[in-house]
Amino acid sequence: MKKANAISGFPEWLPEQRLIELQILDRIRAKFELFGFTPIETRAVEPLAQLLSKGETDKEIYALRRLQAAGEDEEAEFGLHFDLTIPLARYVLQNQGYLNFPLKRYQIQKVWRGERPQEGRYREFYQADIDVIAANELPLHFDAEMPWLLHEVLQSLPIPPVRILINNRKVLEGFYRGLGIEDAQATLRTVDKLDKVGEKGVLAMLIDGVKLERTAAQKCLEIARIRESDSSFADKVEALGVRNELLDEGLHELTFVMDSLQSLPKGSVVSDLHIARGLDYYTGTVYEGCLEGHESLGAVCSGGRYDDLASSDGKNKLPGVGVSIGVTRILGYLFGKDLLHASRKTPSCVLVALPSEAKRAEANAVARMLRGRGICCEVFHLPQKYGKQIRYAERLGIPYVWFPEGQESNAHEVRDIRSGEQTPADAQTWAPPEEDLTVKADFGELSGKGILGRGIEV
Amino acid sequence: MKKANAISGFPEWLPEQRLIELQILDRIRAKFELFGFTPIETRAVEPLAQLLSKGETDKEIYALRRLQAAGEDEEAEFGLHFDLTIPLARYVLQNQGYLNFPLKRYQIQKVWRGERPQEGRYREFYQADIDVIAANELPLHFDAEMPWLLHEVLQSLPIPPVRILINNRKVLEGFYRGLGIEDAQATLRTVDKLDKVGEKGVLAMLIDGVKLERTAAQKCLEIARIRESDSSFADKVEALGVRNELLDEGLHELTFVMDSLQSLPKGSVVSDLHIARGLDYYTGTVYEGCLEGHESLGAVCSGGRYDDLASSDGKNKLPGVGVSIGVTRILGYLFGKDLLHASRKTPSCVLVALPSEAKRAEANAVARMLRGRGICCEVFHLPQKYGKQIRYAERLGIPYVWFPEGQESNAHEVRDIRSGEQTPADAQTWAPPEEDLTVKADFGELSGKGILGRGIEV
Repeated sequence: MKKANAISGFPEWLPEQRLIELQILDRIRAKFELFGFTPIETRAVEPLAQLLSKGETDKEIYALRRLQAAGEDEEAEFGLHFDLTIPLARYVLQNQGYLNFPLKRYQIQKVWRGERPQEGRYREFYQADIDVIAANELPLHFDAEMPWLLHEVLQSLPIPPVRILINNRKVLEGFYRGLGIEDAQATLRTVDKLDKVGEKGVLAMLIDGVKLERTAAQKCLEIARIRESDSSFADKVEALGVRNELLDEGLHELTFVMDSLQSLPKGSVVSDLHIARGLDYYTGTVYEGCLEGHESLGAVCSGGRYDDLASSDGKNKLPGVGVSIGVTRILGYLFGKDLLHASRKTPSCVLVALPSEAKRAEANAVARMLRGRGICCEVFHLPQKYGKQIRYAERLGIPYVWFPEGQESNAHEVRDIRSGEQTPADAQTWAPPEEDLTVKADFGELSGKGILGRGIEV
Repeated sequence: MKKANAISGFPEWLPEQRLIELQILDRIRAKFELFGFTPIETRAVEPLAQLLSKGETDKEIYALRRLQAAGEDEEAEFGLHFDLTIPLARYVLQNQGYLNFPLKRYQIQKVWRGERPQEGRYREFYQADIDVIAANELPLHFDAEMPWLLHEVLQSLPIPPVRILINNRKVLEGFYRGLGIEDAQATLRTVDKLDKVGEKGVLAMLIDGVKLERTAAQKCLEIARIRESDSSFADKVEALGVRNELLDEGLHELTFVMDSLQSLPKGSVVSDLHIARGLDYYTGTVYEGCLEGHESLGAVCSGGRYDDLASSDGKNKLPGVGVSIGVTRILGYLFGKDLLHASRKTPSCVLVALPSEAKRAEANAVARMLRGRGICCEVFHLPQKYGKQIRYAERLGIPYVWFPEGQESNAHEVRDIRSGEQTPADAQTWAPPEEDLTVKADFGELSGKGILGRGIEV
């Protein structure tokens, strides 16, 4: 095998980073389950036609080709899914008779984007999604439950605090219609570029591209400036003097959602009327979250309500609302800035030393006893000098080394290699302190040997 | 969105089945970690050249194509990985300087095979792998640790017992050479077909295809019949009267491995000299495991030692040994036979009923308190009649319904909907019995009212 290199956009972590990633995925999953969401996992592929059907032309897709397919009957062509929402909608339609509604499901999987290799662009990454899909009617309460859950999940992770911005498509579309704008979609997509090109840029695009009057375009910018941590945004919108039925509906919905979230810490959830979310399928509430103090990274979670995505005939509606956490995006950023650290490079809490080949059975017996009580451990593979075995433990960050023969024969001892303290021990009863039992992931600057910032224990 | 169908070979499960799958994956992972294996995850793709480099022409591969790549500079072509061993070897070579050896890693991921759609053939499936990769020398102890670990993992799962068959390539190759056979590889590949075409078929292929003398071909069948649960196989091989140095080496290694495993339950590990494993890269010990009583399913786990896979220059050797558990293969089979059942269809242990809109805040507060103590629960979404809410819980198999107002006002009560027993309860202290806290996965025939309907087959 030839030495190979990384592939741009396909991130891979070292074991100590993967340990952190797994802890974070576990934590997310545990919270999703606490809220009663049930898991599904969909296949990696969908028929290309399905992936392209929602007008998602801005999504770049990897199509698959069987190397050995030559001359055989052609199947429909497949592509790798680029999100977990389209596959969910397909799955729900396909299995409708076997599912219970409202379906509260979570799904944590990789997705792929067939993009040009480019600095900072992921082509393979993890998303952690929750969605609620209802048969016919989806109560607005679920629109409020999403940011609540999102807040609970994210504040339990070893990452910076996340601020969740909320808007409602109906507010923007209704407002645009009230202004007499015909192409609300194009206006929405243009306003969505505010973070990228700024107010001046968007103004120019609205006037030159979407062909709005200057006053209408300016109003579009004014509403986009509204940003409140409670429902007072509604008065500000009304003060702009635009009247429209859809706008009223949107304001009512957004007010309900914001009012429902007032028990969350101030500032963790903000109504922000410039949030549009580019994807076509959202029809009401939309969400977007950023790491506070790291806004340049862009959205690390997002989502919204889609009333029309999962419907086979237009009559039988299956409206949904959901959010997605960009796990790889967060991790790649924090790893890149060296802000996330694992307390060791292996699950092993104990290295059982091997004094001699003759002692191997005894060393194995110690390991078996420790494992029986949930303590991760391994036996050193060769009867080398203790110094070498201890250095192996040091390199991996394994905190304890077990000696299956002590200074007195047949006595066992265990050493905390951080302090050097060595004490007699019995494998049937000894246990490490709780904080050493599992690998810990910490967020914060490294200072000397210690770690500043927040830590989690999973 | 149009109603879509299953795609042959890309299995998907219902939520209650996914809950079982997750539990099984969790348990496998926990055991791997107890043995001190550290996780990695590799990208889904490898350069096509890498995937094809080991002469793996029997592996069918999905190649990827960027839909929007037209006219751009072409990158090297990628394919989806078909196993986790080739990616591991590549990862180790690539990150050698950052890893500690012997590297004991586990990896639980999906793999893909670009096969023709065919009944019972998976094109996307989970593998759970452990491997040890050493710098330079890999002690034989690891060859014995693999089946030990495999046994520990598999006997902890809700599946039939697994019998692990062990052989050593050197035994077969040495034996063939001792018989004067020139093309040992072709002989090995032919003998590997014993389970498929039987002794007569293999004999014919050895004589007509590999061009062996009849007596040599018969000897190849004789050694393949040897099957012992201890190291007595060695005498039987010697009784066949073939002498060869590589054969002796193989017998020594296999004897060591079998002797090391004598503390495992009798019959759980068997030396079986017809096991060859088709893959080219194995160089010594080989493993294969079947579900007892379900042998027709074929191997559900397999692996072996490969001394030459991960080496960039032929000098710096990175020998490895590992095994792989075919998780999807096992699950698909047991789901198909309706032998695996989940105790409910959601993680929720409690449904908090919603008596009226006015009580929503109180219902949410109950849910928050239960969650704070690790009890998965959800609040019913609408203030419908209690009968309707209870039926929702019944359909999902949620064992408890919480009423945030009891018969006396402001009193809370909880009902076990299986027994109908309803008692006053305080959300700050109430907890379900341990066995109701999480979803249980059971293996066995269903008796009485089971909750699993059918499996979604593929």
